Amino acid sequence: MATITPWEVKGNIDYDRLIKDFGLSKIDNKLLKELTSKLGDSHFLRREIFFAHRDLEKALKEHEKENLFLYTGCGPSGPIHMGHAMVWMFTKWLQDKLDCELWFQFTDDEKFLFKDKTYDEIQKWTHENMLDVIALGFNPEKTHFLIDTKHAGLMYPEAIKVAKKLTFSNVKGAFGLGNNNNVGQIFYTAMQAVPAFLPSVIYKKKMFCLIPHAIDQDPHFRLTRDIIPKLGYDKPASIQSRFLPGLAGMQSDGKMSSSTGQAIYLTDDAKTVRKKIMKYAFSGGKDTVEEHRKLGGNPDIDVAFQWLVFFEEDDKKLQEIYDNYKSGKLLSGELKQILVDKLNEFLVEHQKRREKAKTMLDKFIY
Amino acid sequence: MATITPWEVKGNIDYDRLIKDFGLSKIDNKLLKELTSKLGDSHFLRREIFFAHRDLEKALKEHEKENLFLYTGCGPSGPIHMGHAMVWMFTKWLQDKLDCELWFQFTDDEKFLFKDKTYDEIQKWTHENMLDVIALGFNPEKTHFLIDTKHAGLMYPEAIKVAKKLTFSNVKGAFGLGNNNNVGQIFYTAMQAVPAFLPSVIYKKKMFCLIPHAIDQDPHFRLTRDIIPKLGYDKPASIQSRFLPGLAGMQSDGKMSSSTGQAIYLTDDAKTVRKKIMKYAFSGGKDTVEEHRKLGGNPDIDVAFQWLVFFEEDDKKLQEIYDNYKSGKLLSGELKQILVDKLNEFLVEHQKRREKAKTMLDKFIY
Repeated sequence: MATITPWEVKGNIDYDRLIKDFGLSKIDNKLLKELTSKLGDSHFLRREIFFAHRDLEKALKEHEKENLFLYTGCGPSGPIHMGHAMVWMFTKWLQDKLDCELWFQFTDDEKFLFKDKTYDEIQKWTHENMLDVIALGFNPEKTHFLIDTKHAGLMYPEAIKVAKKLTFSNVKGAFGLGNNNNVGQIFYTAMQAVPAFLPSVIYKKKMFCLIPHAIDQDPHFRLTRDIIPKLGYDKPASIQSRFLPGLAGMQSDGKMSSSTGQAIYLTDDAKTVRKKIMKYAFSGGKDTVEEHRKLGGNPDIDVAFQWLVFFEEDDKKLQEIYDNYKSGKLLSGELKQILVDKLNEFLVEHQKRREKAKTMLDKFIY
Repeated sequence: MATITPWEVKGNIDYDRLIKDFGLSKIDNKLLKELTSKLGDSHFLRREIFFAHRDLEKALKEHEKENLFLYTGCGPSGPIHMGHAMVWMFTKWLQDKLDCELWFQFTDDEKFLFKDKTYDEIQKWTHENMLDVIALGFNPEKTHFLIDTKHAGLMYPEAIKVAKKLTFSNVKGAFGLGNNNNVGQIFYTAMQAVPAFLPSVIYKKKMFCLIPHAIDQDPHFRLTRDIIPKLGYDKPASIQSRFLPGLAGMQSDGKMSSSTGQAIYLTDDAKTVRKKIMKYAFSGGKDTVEEHRKLGGNPDIDVAFQWLVFFEEDDKKLQEIYDNYKSGKLLSGELKQILVDKLNEFLVEHQKRREKAKTMLDKFIY
């Protein structure tokens, strides 16, 4: 799958293989053109950060009939890192361009059931994470937060309709669950299916769902697609992103995980961001300045550069950085500083908006 | 286990063996005496219709501290038959004597998940069954209906705390569930555990639960007892009844089932009751009147007589019927007529109260 454009996100993950294994469709040039002509330009699409989909063409058609809504979610078990935020930045872009409703699920039940955390800890993180999501700038008039435990009165009656169509064998295969999993974990995917059709229930008319999500969530939505047509709803469309690489580099799973302790959180202050990037971001530079100047760095394995692919929208700037790093003109520390500045510019504003978000929770919670 | 007192409910079920297998305690003479001295006399106890228990002594002690509440339930998938009503008649007696709260669960999720019925059908039966429960005369000031789907907002957040402690292996063993069961069925027992501690959550003080139930529900509550102490609550106490035999006689499972089509429903009119008893109630009488007069009937296998053990509270009357049937003085049709009269006397009043119950739903639904 090796590609050498600077905007290609690298890693050990064979995304083309994932497309095949998961039965996804690649966002090809034709579809990219259609998206760009209808919605405008996004570096998330043109750099293939969102690279795969199901039924996206159909979603665009449904949008013309004003039936489309977006659905995405957050598993609240810790602070939000840039990998999460990236998916939601694109989701916000989609919402703005489509001018449609977004149903945002906080899967506090999932995190409670799968993590070694107390119910109260998960509730705390749900609150904290909601503030970050609001601060990302979603339209308050058209965004509805669903919190699985808080909205169980609405969701559980629908979830059992999904659950009735889903055997243990089905979820065993899809998630690798076994006899030692708890019965809440086994049930849970039914709850994750609900927002894909809940607006149809609430508005008493057939709505069409489009789910932007990181590719690891695909097994949930494959099952959702199998089942909800049996309940009389359309299969949801979806659009999948690659993972933002972890600071330590492209790990075996390629995904930035907050558990490595080396993620950048949306609540990190400028000093912390600088320290983390300088200390942990895997460098593609050479060992000495002399060597680097002579031989140049390798942006394709350099995490700071890879992050700029996600967060520096300007192609010209990015190409310049790429060329200068490769030629040895730009040192590793200088490249990292570019990323630090880019992130902190965003985070300072984000954290201001996050403060304001505290007064806006009621507006967002359905 | 053969006993020959007229008030012993017979059948192919070896209840002594169930006590051993389930790890129950028999309600022995000492406990029966204590119950009678504290609560008064009940034919359900003195005839060993409610015959087994767990921690009933402890429940009585907690009652002195005014911490006790009752919990029982109804699986709404069809009309209520006398076998259900029998358990709730005793529950009403207990509520009256203990003057305590009763939390009454309608497991509409369970019935939807386990039966080949639509969601709307189950909702219809939930409504119908609630009317029957109200008509049985529970204290409206102290009785709270929990409907699993309607109260999911309250119950699901608690159910996942139970679910987290319960693996698929646990429920496999307890209920014989397998890979082809749906994930809602696998989760469900967590919902049935919730009312055993929900009042402690609601009242923010430690309450103690006593569950009157037919013995087939015991596997649920065995799991509940294992798990809720891990959440900081006391193990619920319980008191178990035998099954009211089906009209066709003591089937292999001994339980009156509405699916045989030969149950007496609380909504049956007097004519229907008479017809069903005359036609279907298995008789212990002889083939001809002559033979019967000469040799006498066998009340121990006669369903009409066995039902009178459950519903004719007067020991003297019952003994007389027993003796007269055994001697041949009372014919099978006459015995059946005694039962028909007894049931219709109850049902006519019940159905009047059921009409009134339609205006009382709001008072009962929590």
